[in-house]
Amino acid sequence: MENEQHYLQKLFEPESIAIVGASEKPNSIGVTLVRNMLDSGYKGSLFFVNPKHETVFGGKSYPSVDAIPHRLDVAVICTKANTVPEIIDACGRAGCRNAIIISGGFAEAGPRGSSLQRSALENARRHGMRVIGPNCLGIMRPGSQINLTFAHGFAHPGTIGLISQSGALCTAILDWALPNNIGFSNVVSLGAESDIDFGEVLDFMVSDPRTENIFLYIEGIKNARRFMSALRAAARCKPVLLIKVGKHPAGRKAVLSHTGALVGADDVFDAALRRAGVIRLANVGQMFAAASALFSHFRPRGKRLAIITNGGGPGVMAADYAEDIGIPLAQLDPAALARLNGLLPGTWSKSNPIDILGDADPARYGAALQACIEDENVDGVLAILTPQAMTDPTQAARTMIEISRKSDKPLVACWMGEDQVLEARKLFQGAGIPSFRTPEPAVDLFSHISNYYRNRQLLMQTPPRLPNRRHRESNRRVWSSKRR
Amino acid sequence: MENEQHYLQKLFEPESIAIVGASEKPNSIGVTLVRNMLDSGYKGSLFFVNPKHETVFGGKSYPSVDAIPHRLDVAVICTKANTVPEIIDACGRAGCRNAIIISGGFAEAGPRGSSLQRSALENARRHGMRVIGPNCLGIMRPGSQINLTFAHGFAHPGTIGLISQSGALCTAILDWALPNNIGFSNVVSLGAESDIDFGEVLDFMVSDPRTENIFLYIEGIKNARRFMSALRAAARCKPVLLIKVGKHPAGRKAVLSHTGALVGADDVFDAALRRAGVIRLANVGQMFAAASALFSHFRPRGKRLAIITNGGGPGVMAADYAEDIGIPLAQLDPAALARLNGLLPGTWSKSNPIDILGDADPARYGAALQACIEDENVDGVLAILTPQAMTDPTQAARTMIEISRKSDKPLVACWMGEDQVLEARKLFQGAGIPSFRTPEPAVDLFSHISNYYRNRQLLMQTPPRLPNRRHRESNRRVWSSKRR
Repeated sequence: MENEQHYLQKLFEPESIAIVGASEKPNSIGVTLVRNMLDSGYKGSLFFVNPKHETVFGGKSYPSVDAIPHRLDVAVICTKANTVPEIIDACGRAGCRNAIIISGGFAEAGPRGSSLQRSALENARRHGMRVIGPNCLGIMRPGSQINLTFAHGFAHPGTIGLISQSGALCTAILDWALPNNIGFSNVVSLGAESDIDFGEVLDFMVSDPRTENIFLYIEGIKNARRFMSALRAAARCKPVLLIKVGKHPAGRKAVLSHTGALVGADDVFDAALRRAGVIRLANVGQMFAAASALFSHFRPRGKRLAIITNGGGPGVMAADYAEDIGIPLAQLDPAALARLNGLLPGTWSKSNPIDILGDADPARYGAALQACIEDENVDGVLAILTPQAMTDPTQAARTMIEISRKSDKPLVACWMGEDQVLEARKLFQGAGIPSFRTPEPAVDLFSHISNYYRNRQLLMQTPPRLPNRRHRESNRRVWSSKRR
Repeated sequence: MENEQHYLQKLFEPESIAIVGASEKPNSIGVTLVRNMLDSGYKGSLFFVNPKHETVFGGKSYPSVDAIPHRLDVAVICTKANTVPEIIDACGRAGCRNAIIISGGFAEAGPRGSSLQRSALENARRHGMRVIGPNCLGIMRPGSQINLTFAHGFAHPGTIGLISQSGALCTAILDWALPNNIGFSNVVSLGAESDIDFGEVLDFMVSDPRTENIFLYIEGIKNARRFMSALRAAARCKPVLLIKVGKHPAGRKAVLSHTGALVGADDVFDAALRRAGVIRLANVGQMFAAASALFSHFRPRGKRLAIITNGGGPGVMAADYAEDIGIPLAQLDPAALARLNGLLPGTWSKSNPIDILGDADPARYGAALQACIEDENVDGVLAILTPQAMTDPTQAARTMIEISRKSDKPLVACWMGEDQVLEARKLFQGAGIPSFRTPEPAVDLFSHISNYYRNRQLLMQTPPRLPNRRHRESNRRVWSSKRR
């Protein structure tokens, strides 16, 4: 496996690329693709195809793919739908084995589009070509200076592999990621998935050493068996975080009109995901939060959360929400309690949430965090700060960062407010400690981190031999209780 | 009522104030209170009391309240708990009828504190005094330049009346509100509610012409009957938005250690709230969102939401979440559909969510919004934008703002991403259109706005006479179906 290339490697790591439909026309997809590749710093060979032009931005423009005097690894196609089947055929004749069809106007546009899509795919199959799309944003591979998308701008190189059925969502995630310094190994917009599907790209991401975490946005699955099998394999190796929409009939109807994919019953899917060890996120906000957290290298052992707070109210909010989502509050060890009794004023809460009181200084925050880190009953810490009169939010953040550095127990920060906590939030971001405005998303994130590790442990376990006799007995018990 | 002053008026609109425990000691509550009042621009008479000093920041310091040669409306007390009973007595002797006890160390600190609290209250009652606190942040009345809190800084004057059982939460809300230009009529931190309680302050806010919206943060209710009655009265007159924590045993335990208040069963409370026409918010994030939205003067007629989007995925997210929280998607009127067919490209979604496609320009956004505004089947609009290559987020926002100005149908914006949508978000904020990063909180907000108006309509209705015969019949039907 290590010496063998994944069969999609050439698609994601092409040495030569043709942009079919390359253009200088303002606001066209063709010009955006060309600009993105010219700006990307790509080291391979880049060719432009457009029969209407002699040159595009000074580069030679070929009348057709098979006129290019060079082996092609990938052709990116953004011409009108009715031209695509013939272009695919030309690609095949030229020996190009991978195409990304950006263009829309296929199956999603009605019967004529469906027929064009069929022709394009037939031509691709005849030549042994693989196809991403149609109707997609394209792919990015920032570490290799490849930006074959029509997104505004480029992404930072990083460790997240993003696979999305929505190109629009990709653009929103990318635009958010840039100023927040979140980087990607691969960004893949699948579009209509006429050929290469979710499961195959997922499989590539698992084999890709640059990808440490996989984020999926899903509207519908076409090949459920292959998908779940790829998902299980992926989640064994790397954290897989997933958003799936189309839970309800209204959403499903919208999915159908959008990508034509069918969505199964949501609860069945949910159960399958949990068994596969995948973390399901509820919304893009959680995906943003998770993306920020992936830069921190926490290793939780379980789900028991300790809450440190200088305000009772926010502590209760966090405790409430933890219970809502099944995160138990840690029962502090007597040794930790004794230690905290020695370090905190007499009126502290004496239990978890650890209310270190409104006049808590950075030292008190530090003492509480240290006690939690040393307490075996605590699997992770949520530290909440409200900017009260005697509070020093920035210095408290510095103290927390310093102490947290010496431990791999997860720390999530919630410095509430705005102006007074801005500096602290920047410090947390710089230190790779996830930080939030309000307690609930912070608890969500801890839940996702801890679920991942728990799922992974479960997957790693070999199930013990079934104790046959007992099993039968308990079965009998169930039956007899039913009869009663 | 109009000519009669509310009995708490002197507390919230004092002409003379004494700060007992006034100090120059850095980082003390006393110095913060003095600084806050000196900086506030207060026009009334301000007196300092501290027997240890001759002056405080150049102002005379009196040895005791009853040495002040002036009638006092309010005494704010921030001295040690054991000095407070005697100070209350002195206030009473001096004819001061309102006290705000900022100090902690009372009932929340154990038996000795409880006894001090009882003494202080007995003294207050003897003199006919009313007391806020103890153990609170104090009160603000920005429109009258009154800042009797130890919060960092002051709030903008505005129309929100905030009543909170958590002082810490007040500081976080205030710190967030300042840069976001959210203003308050009153901010009241109730603390231990030893005397003046939620219901009474709520009643004052209803009578206060500066307060247009009331926000409550609740951990526990002591006088449930008075509270619910005040809540019902308030919700009839003004929008009341409420966060209540302590839903679960873990949270309730934290509440108990924090304020000593008992919390009833959450579902009972929830049902009572709904009947009272109060909007319950799940978290501070929703409170922030609601606060921003209150500056816009929308009048929804119902709950049916139209979603306009340039990306299928985010549209599905919004549709999914709407279904999650019981917001129906509007069924577009045939006339609106026909109109949209004429204005949008042939591949638009032909239904709600209205997918105006990835290359949507500002004009397409405008046409879709206009159609929704004119469609009687639509009660409100969520407009989603993802920053795709051909998108002009800023100009699209301008178009939406212009069209929305001519209508009182709610518009909520969700311009996804960061850098490319920053300008648009500022425009929305300036125009009083609530705007969000992700679809879900935007749907939440529409739900809150529309629930408020619906609740209010229901409260305004006189219930029709019960059709007795039918009622009995339907009862019988239920019974017989059970028997089957």
